[in-house]
Amino acid sequence: MILIKNITIITQNKKREIIKNGALVIENNIIKAIGENSEIEKKYKNAEKIIDGHGKVALPGLINTHGHLAMSLLRGYADDMNLEEWWMKHIYPIESKFGRKEVYWGSLLAMIEMIKSGTTYFADFYYYENEVAKAAQEIGMKGILGCAILDVPTFYYKTSDSAFKKTELLIKKFNNNPLVKIALAPHMFQTTSIETYKKAKKMARDNNLLLFTHAAETKQEVDFSLKNYKQRVIEALIKNDILDEKTILAHCCWLNKKEIKMLAKSNASVAHCPVSNMKLASGIMPLQEMLESGVNISLGTDGVCSNNNLDMLEEMKITALLHKINKLDPNIASAQTVLDMATINGAKALGLEKEIGSLEKGKKADIVFLDFEKSHLIPKHNLISHLVYSANGSDVDTVFINGKMIMKDRKIRKINEKEVFDKVKKII
Amino acid sequence: MILIKNITIITQNKKREIIKNGALVIENNIIKAIGENSEIEKKYKNAEKIIDGHGKVALPGLINTHGHLAMSLLRGYADDMNLEEWWMKHIYPIESKFGRKEVYWGSLLAMIEMIKSGTTYFADFYYYENEVAKAAQEIGMKGILGCAILDVPTFYYKTSDSAFKKTELLIKKFNNNPLVKIALAPHMFQTTSIETYKKAKKMARDNNLLLFTHAAETKQEVDFSLKNYKQRVIEALIKNDILDEKTILAHCCWLNKKEIKMLAKSNASVAHCPVSNMKLASGIMPLQEMLESGVNISLGTDGVCSNNNLDMLEEMKITALLHKINKLDPNIASAQTVLDMATINGAKALGLEKEIGSLEKGKKADIVFLDFEKSHLIPKHNLISHLVYSANGSDVDTVFINGKMIMKDRKIRKINEKEVFDKVKKII
Repeated sequence: MILIKNITIITQNKKREIIKNGALVIENNIIKAIGENSEIEKKYKNAEKIIDGHGKVALPGLINTHGHLAMSLLRGYADDMNLEEWWMKHIYPIESKFGRKEVYWGSLLAMIEMIKSGTTYFADFYYYENEVAKAAQEIGMKGILGCAILDVPTFYYKTSDSAFKKTELLIKKFNNNPLVKIALAPHMFQTTSIETYKKAKKMARDNNLLLFTHAAETKQEVDFSLKNYKQRVIEALIKNDILDEKTILAHCCWLNKKEIKMLAKSNASVAHCPVSNMKLASGIMPLQEMLESGVNISLGTDGVCSNNNLDMLEEMKITALLHKINKLDPNIASAQTVLDMATINGAKALGLEKEIGSLEKGKKADIVFLDFEKSHLIPKHNLISHLVYSANGSDVDTVFINGKMIMKDRKIRKINEKEVFDKVKKII
Repeated sequence: MILIKNITIITQNKKREIIKNGALVIENNIIKAIGENSEIEKKYKNAEKIIDGHGKVALPGLINTHGHLAMSLLRGYADDMNLEEWWMKHIYPIESKFGRKEVYWGSLLAMIEMIKSGTTYFADFYYYENEVAKAAQEIGMKGILGCAILDVPTFYYKTSDSAFKKTELLIKKFNNNPLVKIALAPHMFQTTSIETYKKAKKMARDNNLLLFTHAAETKQEVDFSLKNYKQRVIEALIKNDILDEKTILAHCCWLNKKEIKMLAKSNASVAHCPVSNMKLASGIMPLQEMLESGVNISLGTDGVCSNNNLDMLEEMKITALLHKINKLDPNIASAQTVLDMATINGAKALGLEKEIGSLEKGKKADIVFLDFEKSHLIPKHNLISHLVYSANGSDVDTVFINGKMIMKDRKIRKINEKEVFDKVKKII
């Protein structure tokens, strides 16, 4: 049992309570108690381990619902160009040289970066997912992994049949794994047929798994859909019964009003990736309209190549800024709204809102401490504002995942960071 | 003499050279030598102090050309609302309680934050500038200071006459000061008459000083100008002979094509503050059109209240992202373009391009080291990309200003940070 005392807690519970002088108790992988320090400290003073959280702020581990971890190897490799040129001429040709080893080390590098900036749960959409799972288990991080399913040949397989077989093996291997879950991951309209989407959704439903995909990221994708299916992307997905509450769509920049209503009714979630959408100039997701229609919106960093980091705190700030300026309305996309997207909405998107996304009794102990005794976080008029507008990932100093202390004082405990850096440099 | 060896140098010189394994020599406040490590190290091996910069990247100190330092006291005090409501109902009422002590401690807090995120030169536009100058000299930072000149009464004085008198005293006091320069700072169209602008410009010209002001920040300001002067903001400023190469206009969100051309011809510089403009939903400065017309654009964070930090690295990233998405063109606002804005263009705006803004022989030794051995900065395909898109202010670890080591290993040398934090908390 671990007692964390004298800490300010941003609970993200239903009432969005903040406990100024709070305490938390972790037993195994669960939050056993949470509340005012005065009550908790007395009751659990005999805990095996006691941590003093003075000057620190605890929040639920951040949930990154869209990314491609191994692309961290290509950080800064190609910037400031169109998505097609970027992907076809630069990223894909070098990516095609990736094998097991590259994906393992690239994913481990990404996990180090994510933990160091407060993310405890990631979604990965890539290849060689066995390697990603291996890295996650070694470092002690939670993730949902999908082997990308494309009908065009990739560097990992020749046909989508092969992608399905690989997914099937992953489903068996990681059934009931405490850290790793598997999802179905059809790629996008231009590379994946509707028939393949349907097959993927069937496999997801048969195994009670999530399906995630890229959707309506660019105008070109919508044009492709209109040309080939005589419908826009969301319309086509719904007509073919792909969307339900166990679906996460990444991006959704190009939706019309009708699609937003249809999407809300479908109960699918959307992983909003504003930094990637801005950097590639893909488009602006209609956040306000989607929130008003009741769509569940979570946040994602996307891959490092189009961001170029995995800092969810930065992603939150840019989310708020983008939507305010887009509508010329500073009242929208408030700090609390975007913090919800990075925490409890992410949990909802994953179907895990009873397990993660807030600090509450009985939930998994995925907890992040930020050091708030820094010049850019003083004075402390409003902690939520500070978290969203003033902090960055480097303010994170301690991370618990499933009750285990994965990082302490910015030092990852089970992995030698320098060894990972050296290995990555050697690969490159 | 100080020799800094084995360091990667982003020079920002005319050719924008990057020296992968470089060295720098500082003598007094000047860069005495810069070049390949192999040449420099041999020649200066007897320097009094030798610093090994292995794993680090040196760049010119960042130049923040628009801000209100003491507003750091109001970090997170009011967010997510319209500029008028924000300023009139929340910020100004509490700001009115500020006196000497508040401005001193608030400015010192802001300087700590700026140094810790790589800024070596700031522009401050506020009240009690004597206190700001005192703080700058104590911590060892460079800045240009303007006492805000308004025709409406402020908490600091009743009439603009008084503001002019205070400015006159500052000009005398800080003539030829190695750290502090004085500027004329008429506030904005809604609070300051054209006659006062003219008087300020005359005083600036008589003393060979800069004038900085807010201009065309909001649509309301343009409407005010049209109603009162039958001209848009830039037209009115030019007609009244306010603009020349010794002028910095902050914001400039609402310019038409004609004004952009007039502005370019005037040789005035613009301090672009995208984070503030986004957060307050003021508007989007037409960056691309202004650059194409030849306007010199520098960067500013604006005050903490509308940002809510002073991190120029973050400001660079958001600048690039905003303009790409605004034009749906990822090719514009490249990493190099925005790095120029934060360095050499800032120096030009201040009329100091021969002294600062790049690392070159004979320039002042304003040098910042970033620690690039971090998970979010590996691998290193492109250092400029990393600086703009992947890094944040917390990656800065060492800062020299005028040849003096002001920060080492993230520790400010001449000021006790904790004492400043405690004082600020007490004031609040």
